[in-house]
Amino acid sequence: MTTLLNDRDLQFLLYEFLDTEALLKRPRYAEHARETFDATLETARHIAEELFAPHLAKGDANEPHFDGERVHLVPETKAAWDAFAQAGFLSAHWDEAEGGLQMPEVVLRSAITYFKSANVATSTYSFLSIGSANLLRSFGTPEQKARFLAPMGDGRFSGTMALTEPGQGSALGDITTRAELQPDGTYRLFGQKMFISGGDHDLADNIVHMVLARIKGAPAGVKGISLFLVPKYLVNEDGSIGARNDVTLAGLLHKMGWRNATSTVLSFGERGGAVGTLVGDAGKGLAHMFQMMNEARIGIGLCAAAIAYRAYLMTLEYARERPQGRLPSCKDPLSPQVRLIQHADVRRMLLAQKAYAEGALAMCLYASSLFEDQHTHPDETERRNAGLLLDLLTPMVKSWSSKYGCASNDMAIQILGGSGYIREYPQEQLYRDQRLNPIHEGAEAIHGIDLLGRKVVMQSGAAYELFRAAADATLEEARNIPELATLADGFDTPLARLGKVTAQLVRLQSSDPDRALANATIYLDAFGRILAAWIWLKQALAAQRGLVNAKQGDRAFYQGKLHAARYYCNWELPATLPQFDLLAGVEDTPLTMQDAWF
Amino acid sequence: MTTLLNDRDLQFLLYEFLDTEALLKRPRYAEHARETFDATLETARHIAEELFAPHLAKGDANEPHFDGERVHLVPETKAAWDAFAQAGFLSAHWDEAEGGLQMPEVVLRSAITYFKSANVATSTYSFLSIGSANLLRSFGTPEQKARFLAPMGDGRFSGTMALTEPGQGSALGDITTRAELQPDGTYRLFGQKMFISGGDHDLADNIVHMVLARIKGAPAGVKGISLFLVPKYLVNEDGSIGARNDVTLAGLLHKMGWRNATSTVLSFGERGGAVGTLVGDAGKGLAHMFQMMNEARIGIGLCAAAIAYRAYLMTLEYARERPQGRLPSCKDPLSPQVRLIQHADVRRMLLAQKAYAEGALAMCLYASSLFEDQHTHPDETERRNAGLLLDLLTPMVKSWSSKYGCASNDMAIQILGGSGYIREYPQEQLYRDQRLNPIHEGAEAIHGIDLLGRKVVMQSGAAYELFRAAADATLEEARNIPELATLADGFDTPLARLGKVTAQLVRLQSSDPDRALANATIYLDAFGRILAAWIWLKQALAAQRGLVNAKQGDRAFYQGKLHAARYYCNWELPATLPQFDLLAGVEDTPLTMQDAWF
Repeated sequence: MTTLLNDRDLQFLLYEFLDTEALLKRPRYAEHARETFDATLETARHIAEELFAPHLAKGDANEPHFDGERVHLVPETKAAWDAFAQAGFLSAHWDEAEGGLQMPEVVLRSAITYFKSANVATSTYSFLSIGSANLLRSFGTPEQKARFLAPMGDGRFSGTMALTEPGQGSALGDITTRAELQPDGTYRLFGQKMFISGGDHDLADNIVHMVLARIKGAPAGVKGISLFLVPKYLVNEDGSIGARNDVTLAGLLHKMGWRNATSTVLSFGERGGAVGTLVGDAGKGLAHMFQMMNEARIGIGLCAAAIAYRAYLMTLEYARERPQGRLPSCKDPLSPQVRLIQHADVRRMLLAQKAYAEGALAMCLYASSLFEDQHTHPDETERRNAGLLLDLLTPMVKSWSSKYGCASNDMAIQILGGSGYIREYPQEQLYRDQRLNPIHEGAEAIHGIDLLGRKVVMQSGAAYELFRAAADATLEEARNIPELATLADGFDTPLARLGKVTAQLVRLQSSDPDRALANATIYLDAFGRILAAWIWLKQALAAQRGLVNAKQGDRAFYQGKLHAARYYCNWELPATLPQFDLLAGVEDTPLTMQDAWF
Repeated sequence: MTTLLNDRDLQFLLYEFLDTEALLKRPRYAEHARETFDATLETARHIAEELFAPHLAKGDANEPHFDGERVHLVPETKAAWDAFAQAGFLSAHWDEAEGGLQMPEVVLRSAITYFKSANVATSTYSFLSIGSANLLRSFGTPEQKARFLAPMGDGRFSGTMALTEPGQGSALGDITTRAELQPDGTYRLFGQKMFISGGDHDLADNIVHMVLARIKGAPAGVKGISLFLVPKYLVNEDGSIGARNDVTLAGLLHKMGWRNATSTVLSFGERGGAVGTLVGDAGKGLAHMFQMMNEARIGIGLCAAAIAYRAYLMTLEYARERPQGRLPSCKDPLSPQVRLIQHADVRRMLLAQKAYAEGALAMCLYASSLFEDQHTHPDETERRNAGLLLDLLTPMVKSWSSKYGCASNDMAIQILGGSGYIREYPQEQLYRDQRLNPIHEGAEAIHGIDLLGRKVVMQSGAAYELFRAAADATLEEARNIPELATLADGFDTPLARLGKVTAQLVRLQSSDPDRALANATIYLDAFGRILAAWIWLKQALAAQRGLVNAKQGDRAFYQGKLHAARYYCNWELPATLPQFDLLAGVEDTPLTMQDAWF
C-alpha cells in the first residue's frame, strides 16, 4: 500500500502549524474532541486506501463511456462513492439540525485530501456534491432543501456546477442559457453547458445540476445571471424520483488525465425545456455561485497539493531504493553505486517537491482555517477579517498550488527518468492528472486579474493590510529566533517591493486598467511566492517550537520542515526580484506585440 | 492542413541568420545551389504534411502492440517510412561515393524538422537509422559497411542505439551486457537492454542494433565498453537476409506520449548468444557511441523545437479566431467579445512560445552549422574551433530546447483552457510527446555536470573563451544599432557573472567536486538562458538588416523577430541573476538535506 500523505505532517499542520484544538472551545464544536477529529482522518485514510487508490490506474485506462443511453464507469467508482457517503463525509460539516456532524472545515478538508491523493478523478463526484449541497444550504428555499438536501447528504443524489458554455469559456457574463418563467413559478431552461464535471454517471439515483442561466428579459452581462436547480430526474413531493427532466448528455469529453471523472456537454431543453427552480435571488446567480467557486478554488488547491504529495512520496521511495551511478568525487568504477537520493540534483528536486507539496497542503489548510474563522469565530471583527484575508488569498491558494503542483509532478517524472515516462509507473498519470488544476475553476490569468484588479483594491486595500500585518507578526517572531532570523531577513526586500508595486499598479488602474493589469499573472506568481514563503516560515516556527522537546524520530521530521523552509526562502523567494522589476517598469513588450508580427 | 513550421522563418534562419549560401563555395557542395537546398525542404514539407502529420493522433490512440511474434504499428507508419527513404533522406548527407547527395548538415536538419513537427514518434525510426548508419560510416569495417550500409541508406534496414540497461539508467559505466569472442572473430552477446527506441517494428526487413557491451575480461567502468553491430537477422555475404539472430523482444514499454515509436526491452543471447561484430576499437565503445549521442542530442533539441513550434502555430490560429471576454477597460457587457489574442496575458504566452520555439529552432540550426563547419570548413583552425564550440553548446542546445519546449507546450494548453486539456484538440498530445525530451539522450542533470564538470574546463577553458568571443562580437555589432543597443547592454551583468561563477566553480572542482557540481543544473539553465538570449540577439541583428529593404508583408515578420528578441532579453535573461546568486554562494541547502529529514 502506497502512502497517500505523511500522517505525521497532517498532525503537524493541524495541531502545531494551526491550532485546530482551539476550535473545541467554540460552542459549535463543544461535543467534539481531538479524538473525533483524528478518528475522522483515520476513517478517511482507510477508505481512501481501500476503495479509492486501487483503481487509480484502472479508471485512467478504462475511461467512462457513453453507450447512447447510460454512462459507464469502472465499477470500483460506485463502491468508492458509496463508502464515502456511508461514512458521512458528504454531510459531516452540516449542522446537527441538518443531519450533519458539525465537523470543522479544516478537519473535513484534511480528511478529503486523502481521497484526492488516492484518486482525484473518483473523488470529484463527492467534491462537487458537497459544493452544490452547500449552495442549496445557503440559498435554497425551504421547499428545495426539503426535497433535495437529505439525498445529497447521504449520497442518493449527486450534484454539479454548470457554468461554462461552448461559446464563452472564462467570460461568464456572456453565457446564453435562458430560463423562462412558467405560471407555476418554475422555469424552463434552454441551452448547452460544457466541461461539466460529473454531469452524468451511474453512481447516484439523481443528479442535481446547479445551473447559471439568464431569465428572459434580464440585462446583459453578469447582472442578468440567475442560479437554478435543475435535476436530472424530477423529484416528487414525497421525495420519490419522478419523470426524466429535459437534460441530456450531448457527449463526453476525453481528457488527458483525471479521466475517471466524466467531463460532459449537457443539453437543456431540447424537448420543450428543462424544469428548474430559482435558487436565491434573480440576477444574483453569479454572486451565489461564487460561494461554490471560492470553496472549489481552495478545493483545487488541495487537489494540486494531494497529487503533488502522492508523487513526492512515491518518488522519495524510488530514490531511496534505486542504485544509480556515483558521485562526482568518486573515480573508481568498481565502487558500489550510490542510491539516487545521494545525487545532489535529485535531492534538490526532492526538496523542491517537499516544499511544493507540503507547502501547498499547509497553504490550503491555512485557508480552510480562515474559512472556519470567517464562519465560527466568536469575535465579529475576527470573522470579518478572516473572510477578507481569505478573499485575498484564494486566487493564490488556487494558482500557486496548481502551478507548483505541476512543477512538482514534473520533477517526480524527471527523477525516475525513463521510468517516469512510462505507464508502468504511476508518475506519468499523476502528471497528467495534475495538469488540469491550473485550468479549471479559473485559469491562471483570471486569478491574476482578480488579485490585482479586485482583491488588493477592495475596501481600500484592507485585505492587503491584513496580510501585511500577519506577515509582519510572523517575521517579528522569527527574528527573535537565531535559527530563523536570516530567513526572516530575506523577506524584507520582496515585501517592500510588493507593497510599492501594488500601490503603483493600483494607482495606474484608474487611468489605464489594460496596462496596469497586463502583467497581472506575474504579480500573481510573485505574490504567491511570498505567500508560500510566509507559510513555510510559519511552519519553520512551529517546527522550531516542536524541536525543543522532540524525541529522536520526531527531530528528523522537524529538521526536514526547517530545511524545506530554508530551501523555499533561499531558492524561490529571491526569484520574485526580477518579477518586481518587470512589474515596476510596467514592461510592455507583450502588450505592444501586434497580431501581424506573430 | 496544419502548418508544420513557418516556412518564412526557416528561410530566414538558413539564409539571413545563418549564411547557408556560403557553403556553396566549399568544394563538397559545388554541385549544389540554393535551389537544391530549397527543393529538399519543399520535398520534406510535402511528405511530412501528406504522410506523417495525418496519423499523429491515430498512432497515439493505437499504440504499437506485440502479439508475441510481431510488433504491429498503424499502417500509415510504414507508408511514411517508405516515402522518407525513397526521397533519399536516409542518405542525403552521405558522400556521393557512398551513394549520397552530399547535402549539408544544416539543410538536412532543417528538412527533418518538418517530420518531427508532423509526427515525432513516426520520425524516430528514421532519425535513429540515420544516426546508427553514421556510426557505421565512421567506425565500421569495410566488410560491415559493404553488408549493412546500402540497405540502411535506402530503408530496407533500420537502425537503433542500444545503451541503457534495466539496472543502470544514466550510468553507462555500469552496463553488464557481455560479449564473448568466437574463433571466427565474431562475438556472442548476452544481456538485456531497456528503453530501446525502434528496437522492434514491422517497417524494414532488418534492424541493425548498435550495442554497447563489455568484452569478457574487459576492465570495469567506461574503459571496458565496446561497440557491436548486432542485426535482428543475420545477413549473408551476398547481402541476402539470413537466419534470425538471438535478439528477442522481451516487451514493449507504454509511454505517456511519443507512442507510435516503440520503446522496447530487448534480450540478447537467450538461446546461445546473439551474433555481433565489433565496431571500431575494443574499449572505445562509449567514445564511438558519443558521436551518435552528440548528434542525437542536437536531434532531441530539434524534436523539442519542432513540437513546440507546431503547438505554437496551432495556438496562434486558435487565439486569433476564438472570441473570449473583454479587456479590463471595457465595462459594457453588450460590446462584442474580443479575440483571445487581444488579452495581454494570452499575448505574453504566445510571445513566450514564439521565443522558445523559434529560439530553439535557431539554436539547433546554429549548432548544425557548427557541425557543418567542424567537418567541411576549409580552414583547419575554424574546423577545430567549430568542434570545440559545438561540444560546449551541445548540453545546452539539448536541455534548453527541451525544458523550454515543455514550458511552451504547457502555455499552448493554458491558452486553450479546457479545450487544451482534452484529446479533441492536439495540444494535449503534443504536451505529452514533448515531455520525453528532457529525459532521453541524458536527463537534465547529466548535461549540467557535463557542461560545468567537463565542457567549460576542457582545453583550459578554450571552448568557453570561443563562446565569449562570439558573444562579444555580436554585442559589439548590436551596440552600434540604436534599436538594439539597450538589448545588448542587458547582457553585461549576466555575462560578467557567468564568467566569475564559472571560474569560481572550476577552481572549486579540484578541491571539492561534489560541492562544486551540486548546483550544476542551475548553472546549465542560467548559461542556457544566456545562450538563448544571444541566439535571439543574433536573430534581431539579421532582422534589423532585413528590415532595411523589406516589403510590406515582410516588415511584420522582421518586427516579430525583433519583438521576440526584446521579450526574451527583457523577461528571461534577468532571471539568471538570482541563479548566479545561488551559484556564487554555492548554496548548499539541497546538498546538506539528509535522507531521514524527508
